[in-house]
Amino acid sequence: MKMVSTIAEMQRLADDLRCQGKRIGVVPTMGYLHEGHLSLIKIARQNADSIITTIFVNPTQFGPDEDFAKYPRDLDRDTKLAETAGTDILFVPSAEEMYRDDHFTYVTVEKLTDVLEGKARPMHFRGVTTIVTKLFNITKPHVAVFGQKDAQQAIVIERMIRDLNFDLRIIVAPIVRDNDGLAMSSRNVYLCQRERIESTVLSQSLRLAETLIAQGERKCSTVISEMTKLITTTSAKIDYVSIVDAETLREYITLPSGARVLISLAARFGTTRLIDNTIITV
Amino acid sequence: MKMVSTIAEMQRLADDLRCQGKRIGVVPTMGYLHEGHLSLIKIARQNADSIITTIFVNPTQFGPDEDFAKYPRDLDRDTKLAETAGTDILFVPSAEEMYRDDHFTYVTVEKLTDVLEGKARPMHFRGVTTIVTKLFNITKPHVAVFGQKDAQQAIVIERMIRDLNFDLRIIVAPIVRDNDGLAMSSRNVYLCQRERIESTVLSQSLRLAETLIAQGERKCSTVISEMTKLITTTSAKIDYVSIVDAETLREYITLPSGARVLISLAARFGTTRLIDNTIITV
Repeated sequence: MKMVSTIAEMQRLADDLRCQGKRIGVVPTMGYLHEGHLSLIKIARQNADSIITTIFVNPTQFGPDEDFAKYPRDLDRDTKLAETAGTDILFVPSAEEMYRDDHFTYVTVEKLTDVLEGKARPMHFRGVTTIVTKLFNITKPHVAVFGQKDAQQAIVIERMIRDLNFDLRIIVAPIVRDNDGLAMSSRNVYLCQRERIESTVLSQSLRLAETLIAQGERKCSTVISEMTKLITTTSAKIDYVSIVDAETLREYITLPSGARVLISLAARFGTTRLIDNTIITV
Repeated sequence: MKMVSTIAEMQRLADDLRCQGKRIGVVPTMGYLHEGHLSLIKIARQNADSIITTIFVNPTQFGPDEDFAKYPRDLDRDTKLAETAGTDILFVPSAEEMYRDDHFTYVTVEKLTDVLEGKARPMHFRGVTTIVTKLFNITKPHVAVFGQKDAQQAIVIERMIRDLNFDLRIIVAPIVRDNDGLAMSSRNVYLCQRERIESTVLSQSLRLAETLIAQGERKCSTVISEMTKLITTTSAKIDYVSIVDAETLREYITLPSGARVLISLAARFGTTRLIDNTIITV
């Protein structure tokens, strides 16, 4: 595995790979890799010839009161894990390499970012779409793999790719969970033991929603209120529990048959904010 | 010369050219080609192997009260001119091909677009940077040529290329003028005979500014007021006359020695809005 830290070298390597007829797969990450990330790298391997994993804790997608400074980092461990999972090139730029002091350019996806995570974290998606645009221009991929864990992110990036005509295909990879159901996240390390145990309630609430809807429940308010009841048996503070169309992100009141819906939630255990979701067809 | 109207075909052709080791030069235009555009195509030819000229009257860069609907169009004439000037591929997409009804994604360059044309035309540059991003992703150029006539546009696009890490080089080509000094513009056809004669005052005012500064004048207000006096000897209504730093676009009060400054103006003759500029080193 090759380590690259400058934009110019990464672009030259990407050009070389393309000229050799290799299909490039990119897996953008913020590092502190877990099984979820590794599954993305493995899926990239199955869909491309040369895999670039990027590690960059992107400052522009964190709000001023969020955890940018304390976001967990462990490059030595990440390097080993990325290589074992099948990475060919690890792109690890510095913050100075990625953003000049007078960086003025941003990519925004309107409407889809007004809800859910975008509502809870106002500048978050502008940071995400800007850094992903930069990483696409730097790594020149044919295929990019993102996790379903960040469901809205995947939907926003798909729209951005379509609207800006990026000539690449996105693959959204399933959520990887711990044995007890908690979705893998670099932020899980923040949880104390009690919170870690309580946090399983998030995936349980999604399974509950799936069961209720499978049993015929169509009123979203009922599903959401049952999920809320379950989650608030713990110390969790709910940010949102939401049922929306999985493409337009418009809220449903009553679920129509055949609709593809995104059931998603965000909740805090102490200061740790976790998200989880499921997409189902009614 | 090959004519292409779909994004998918243009991207395939661009990939093929790149794999053959050809350097792609792109000249984005809104059509109704004049000597100014043709000079861009010729400069592209000198700097690349395969020249793509694009013609697209981009709706998102026109304000609601601007001249999108009546913007002059003549594809037959453009086709002949583009070929004669050295275009290899003419990319002429429809509006439907370029923008879906639910297009939500925009590229914005902050700060640099708050002044001059951006101040006079609030959504203009958002439209420009969005369409240019799309055209870059569609034509995959090594080199892109823009005209100095749209000075702020060139500066904004250069910043966008840097900030978003587009792997290409921009060339800014000198303004081409009619014999009497009027800068070439597709909008010049709107001028009646009297306005056409009066319009030479714009370039004359820039020459006056250059002369005053060469003679030692350093107070911007004096230079601007002399330019204004000259322009308003005609029926012209001035939008702005401005002297700014040619990179940051910050206004000068007193010109420092060695500064690279953009002297630019916009004025209306009847309903026709014209712009012109010069960049000088003090």
